[in-house]
Amino acid sequence: MLKLFFSLFAGTLVLTTNAQDTISRDSAFIRSIYEEVLTNGECFENLRVLCKDIGNRLAGSENADKAIVWGKQTLEKYPLSEVSLMPVEVPHWVRGKQEVGYFSFMPDSIQVVAITALGGSVGTNGILTSNIVEVKSFAELKELGREKVEGKIVFFNKAMDAMLINTGAAYGGAYEIRGSGPSEAARYGAVGCIIRSLTLAEDKYAHTGGTIYNDSLPRIPAAALSSVDARALSQALKQHPNLTFSFDMNCEAFPRKMQANVIGEIKGSVYPDQYIIVGGHLDSWDIGEGAHDDGTGIVQSIEVLRAMSALGYKPRYSIRAVLFINEEFGNDGGETYARYAKENGITHVAAIESDGGGFTPRGFGMEGTDGQFALLESWAPFFDDYNLHQFRRGHSGVDIRPLKDDRVALFGLIVDNQRYFDYHHSNNDRFENVNKRELEMGAASMAALVYLLDQSGIPVLP
Amino acid sequence: MLKLFFSLFAGTLVLTTNAQDTISRDSAFIRSIYEEVLTNGECFENLRVLCKDIGNRLAGSENADKAIVWGKQTLEKYPLSEVSLMPVEVPHWVRGKQEVGYFSFMPDSIQVVAITALGGSVGTNGILTSNIVEVKSFAELKELGREKVEGKIVFFNKAMDAMLINTGAAYGGAYEIRGSGPSEAARYGAVGCIIRSLTLAEDKYAHTGGTIYNDSLPRIPAAALSSVDARALSQALKQHPNLTFSFDMNCEAFPRKMQANVIGEIKGSVYPDQYIIVGGHLDSWDIGEGAHDDGTGIVQSIEVLRAMSALGYKPRYSIRAVLFINEEFGNDGGETYARYAKENGITHVAAIESDGGGFTPRGFGMEGTDGQFALLESWAPFFDDYNLHQFRRGHSGVDIRPLKDDRVALFGLIVDNQRYFDYHHSNNDRFENVNKRELEMGAASMAALVYLLDQSGIPVLP
Repeated sequence: MLKLFFSLFAGTLVLTTNAQDTISRDSAFIRSIYEEVLTNGECFENLRVLCKDIGNRLAGSENADKAIVWGKQTLEKYPLSEVSLMPVEVPHWVRGKQEVGYFSFMPDSIQVVAITALGGSVGTNGILTSNIVEVKSFAELKELGREKVEGKIVFFNKAMDAMLINTGAAYGGAYEIRGSGPSEAARYGAVGCIIRSLTLAEDKYAHTGGTIYNDSLPRIPAAALSSVDARALSQALKQHPNLTFSFDMNCEAFPRKMQANVIGEIKGSVYPDQYIIVGGHLDSWDIGEGAHDDGTGIVQSIEVLRAMSALGYKPRYSIRAVLFINEEFGNDGGETYARYAKENGITHVAAIESDGGGFTPRGFGMEGTDGQFALLESWAPFFDDYNLHQFRRGHSGVDIRPLKDDRVALFGLIVDNQRYFDYHHSNNDRFENVNKRELEMGAASMAALVYLLDQSGIPVLP
Repeated sequence: MLKLFFSLFAGTLVLTTNAQDTISRDSAFIRSIYEEVLTNGECFENLRVLCKDIGNRLAGSENADKAIVWGKQTLEKYPLSEVSLMPVEVPHWVRGKQEVGYFSFMPDSIQVVAITALGGSVGTNGILTSNIVEVKSFAELKELGREKVEGKIVFFNKAMDAMLINTGAAYGGAYEIRGSGPSEAARYGAVGCIIRSLTLAEDKYAHTGGTIYNDSLPRIPAAALSSVDARALSQALKQHPNLTFSFDMNCEAFPRKMQANVIGEIKGSVYPDQYIIVGGHLDSWDIGEGAHDDGTGIVQSIEVLRAMSALGYKPRYSIRAVLFINEEFGNDGGETYARYAKENGITHVAAIESDGGGFTPRGFGMEGTDGQFALLESWAPFFDDYNLHQFRRGHSGVDIRPLKDDRVALFGLIVDNQRYFDYHHSNNDRFENVNKRELEMGAASMAALVYLLDQSGIPVLP
């Protein structure tokens, strides 16, 4: 490792001193980044304003409009070269009144449950009541077939796998239930769909998230049930297979509208037309405060520019913070940004996304060439003092993924994600659940990587 | 690393299969430990009872008596070989009524501040009011001398160093202010002592902790001030150097009394008279709920025995969970346990302590011989899937440290401690601030290490 560290690093710089001096200089600068962020950091206060003065901010909502103005004004507080908006077309879906759900197995008695409409769901058009059929998978649903499903509500009761240490993998393993479950249920004639919330916590929070209707099938109302209520419903069904489930939601889709990505920039001194970007998504789901998802990625990205600027760093490449709009429900911000870059022949050297929550950073995932990955691995010693130890190939970020080409290196901040899905897409994703130092450690780690990328240009090595 | 891993490990087992088979078997068993704890773990529910039904439990208090009964009954729920109590003499100090503190720089106007008596402090005997002198260190205090200090309250306004990534080191750097500050102030004639709380958070929580009076100096009342109030007081002092500070505390020390360490045990099948212990401390400070300090270490230690038992594991050595009493204010539980072991010639092969909070585990610190440490390092690959990466020489735990001899290997669970001092010794150390999975990951990691220690006997290698 150390040998590679020396040789690769030396090879990527115009050296006026020897390699050891360069390493010492870089280590010292990285130390100054962490110190700046941990002592003068403004990301925690910025997050407080975003969560408390604006709150949740689904793309298409008025709160998202406010967040765009806030993003622009916040970036303008710092001495950057430029702050701009990039128009993006986004969907506009409105939850409407608070949802109600309950089940009943005897006259004049109901058990109320915590539910939340899945993003994009149609409404119930008044109270929808029906018998319910419980399954754990699409295979089980298929086996039941139309005969046993038609006219009923399908209840997908599949928990995330607690045995997976990486909670993101556990989420990935259950994700298709939310994304495709409602249309799969409709395929067999179901009139509604209820899923167990995608969370590892046992509590009364219902977790929303986008569902995608299959255009060739009827659109049926779909909601998530809290994990505690899913367990209670499942137990009740064992005793009373003919119980009825009722829910009432008046969510509705409206025509698409225009919002914007917000972009702050420090112009590069050597390669002003080539970009290294840091980003997250400004939109959130429409319950809770969108604190960890992804307010933290937004304020960390802004903090990278603030800290670089406060330290008087003059980057060789242009450094941008991009606050993408609408990651949650179609990735319009990321797609629009990448399309614009391609159409205008703009070169992106590297992109870093933070969208795993504002927890203690553990390292970086990367999409790029073998040579670029070897370079990342060679930088591991720089991060050792800050307890980052995971440098691996894998997912970078939904917003930056559309930039993928033969040149750009894409990075995702890896954080300690044991508690992420306790909050994710729920009313529990609040500012109070973000820790200042953990947030700052992530921001500093992103800035440190930006520095190394800027110094090296992360060339496409053979 | 891998070479050492193979060769050392193979050398410590009577091999009937080859080394690779042994490694596969051990990996599989360790996997089963994590799965057992993450899916059937009872430590989180046990912690809920300890925090919510009993609450804080300063040694010497009635709540500590209740906690001892709870600890015994909780261990007795599981099929262990034996559960016992070991009598321990502990101090008995009582905070009395809630403390009040305020400062004033104009007639008929006061600013109330959040304070908490330091553990062991004498009371104020009514409201104590005096001018105040602010210092950051013992050196500054000495420079001021008796002339400027006599008859006043000394205000030690020293923050923990936010630039240290290891918050434990930051705590260590500020610790002497709390431990010795009151007596140092008394040395120059001060009548009271106020310290900035030892925390990295900017909030209104005051953090207590033990102070040790120097027997040759007058005992003056001492309290901690919240970090936000410390900042406010310091700013007010700049404008109004003659402001007065007042506080009222009626805390009091009573004669020492008897309480107990609680010990649960699974008898060893090969070396029943040699012990591997896991532990934490059952006592806490007397504000908040003692959740992270050290309720989590207690329920994790119990969970190690529960999981081993649930998996049907028959240890070669006797495995004990020791719930030590009074770590916080004199380490009586740890000292008594070690003295008993020494007097009765009981061999301890290894001891593991969890007393850094119930956060995501990062590895283990160790006190032992070079050979033992090399063996620990050789085990790192077993922990890789669970994201433990720090294996280093250093602090193990206050409770187990008195066991130190030429034979025993002492380990401390290293956790991600960025937010630990937000809670530590304050009213904010509550069950709600503990995450179930993070807690369980720590318990499983301790059990995995117990397994490896039991298999190897962690011999004192040359």
